[in-house]
Amino acid sequence: MTAHRHVIRVRYAESDQMGFAHHSTFIVWMEEARIEWLRSIGHSYRDLETQGVLMPVIEVQITYKKPFRFDDQVELTTEIAALGRSRVQFSTVFRMVGNETVHAEGRVVIAAVGRDGRPQRMPTGVLSTLPASP
Amino acid sequence: MTAHRHVIRVRYAESDQMGFAHHSTFIVWMEEARIEWLRSIGHSYRDLETQGVLMPVIEVQITYKKPFRFDDQVELTTEIAALGRSRVQFSTVFRMVGNETVHAEGRVVIAAVGRDGRPQRMPTGVLSTLPASP
Amino acid sequence: MTAHRHVIRVRYAESDQMGFAHHSTFIVWMEEARIEWLRSIGHSYRDLETQGVLMPVIEVQITYKKPFRFDDQVELTTEIAALGRSRVQFSTVFRMVGNETVHAEGRVVIAAVGRDGRPQRMPTGVLSTLPASP
Amino acid sequence: MTAHRHVIRVRYAESDQMGFAHHSTFIVWMEEARIEWLRSIGHSYRDLETQGVLMPVIEVQITYKKPFRFDDQVELTTEIAALGRSRVQFSTVFRMVGNETVHAEGRVVIAAVGRDGRPQRMPTGVLSTLPASP
Repeated sequence: MTAHRHVIRVRYAESDQMGFAHHSTFIVWMEEARIEWLRSIGHSYRDLETQGVLMPVIEVQITYKKPFRFDDQVELTTEIAALGRSRVQFSTVFRMVGNETVHAEGRVVIAAVGRDGRPQRMPTGVLSTLPASP
Repeated sequence: MTAHRHVIRVRYAESDQMGFAHHSTFIVWMEEARIEWLRSIGHSYRDLETQGVLMPVIEVQITYKKPFRFDDQVELTTEIAALGRSRVQFSTVFRMVGNETVHAEGRVVIAAVGRDGRPQRMPTGVLSTLPASP
Repeated sequence: MTAHRHVIRVRYAESDQMGFAHHSTFIVWMEEARIEWLRSIGHSYRDLETQGVLMPVIEVQITYKKPFRFDDQVELTTEIAALGRSRVQFSTVFRMVGNETVHAEGRVVIAAVGRDGRPQRMPTGVLSTLPASP
Repeated sequence: MTAHRHVIRVRYAESDQMGFAHHSTFIVWMEEARIEWLRSIGHSYRDLETQGVLMPVIEVQITYKKPFRFDDQVELTTEIAALGRSRVQFSTVFRMVGNETVHAEGRVVIAAVGRDGRPQRMPTGVLSTLPASP
């Protein structure tokens, strides 16, 4: 299981008057990276929702060390760790493309639930990519 | 039929690196003002959607004259004009609270449609507040 | 030192296709609540920035238990704890107005820095409101 | 002078409870497309701002015909028309990638101004790409 890389470019609308990408946007980028990770292993999050599997975020935690600015190319390196049958935790490191310096680190826990809000088993294909899976 | 006043305060996250409220946020404020206008005449947009009446925006136009900044209190004065049974046009003037200078002017056209996307008659209560209604 | 209450109403633009307020918006609401808390103790964050005191967020953590929906009135109850001369931690509990059920809990750490990015002493007025201050 | 193509994918956070990309996000995408157009002709909007040339939006107009949904790949085809020495108008057509159907049409007017807010001549490189330029 290798880490997944996703690159975004900071939008003008995401900058704030401090001249930095607003801290709330890191969450939106992490979500985009998760969805691209899913696609890279053959899953469409859109299709999962259509099939009745929702994956709401139940916890998020981010440490900000260095800011990003408008037009910066941000590389998100995402790794996952199995937490159980209905939860997955993702860890993301934020860097500038082509630079090793860590700008931020994030962690997100998602749950698999049905339309009724009840916990569901993670889709098999997702589980099978996880390091701790049998 | 009098104009409806709604006041918002510019959020930090809405500022951009020019130091101004980003031009896309004016659309979000106009939407909030429309929903508060509906509430002021006794309608909940949430309930209308639950009842199957969606009101998507089909046209928007904004002229920006003077910027707003973080923490500014923006007064949106909204008036409506009947366009027909399934469309309503709203005009909004943006000012600073307590100041006559016009910072921006916006215009939004919404359509009433069902969940199937087909045009619907505007809810009676909405129509009856419109100047052109009988 | 009592907790600070701030109420926001979920905007339509903040809803997502799950029908919930998107998890990134909780961060924007917490920021609005912090700024209103500052105002309630006689400080304008806008003025602090003009005077050269920036307060970037260096950590954020949120646990989501129950979602909010469009048009919900969300009450943010915010308390602060001194961390030191140049850092303050805020804890926020998210509830529906008029209901004790906790929907989410958040924690934000901000740093006081100058335009050069160097740590600064928190403004005196802010420090004096903190429980651990002399 | 040919049209410029830019493709974005609708983010989950950009969806709303109607299941559509919120109408305010079209403005953010148009901005991203303009900045990529500038890059394609050898200009960095970030550098222009650093050099003191701001390009605020002074008018925007969008007609929405068909919605986009989360995960859709949206192709923005942007053309420009010279309006004068300190203003440029951009026209954008929104389609799904690989499909001719027009989902929306937008128009944005930007002005070149200095940090003092006074109109400035458009940067030479930008003007020289315009059809009406000598």
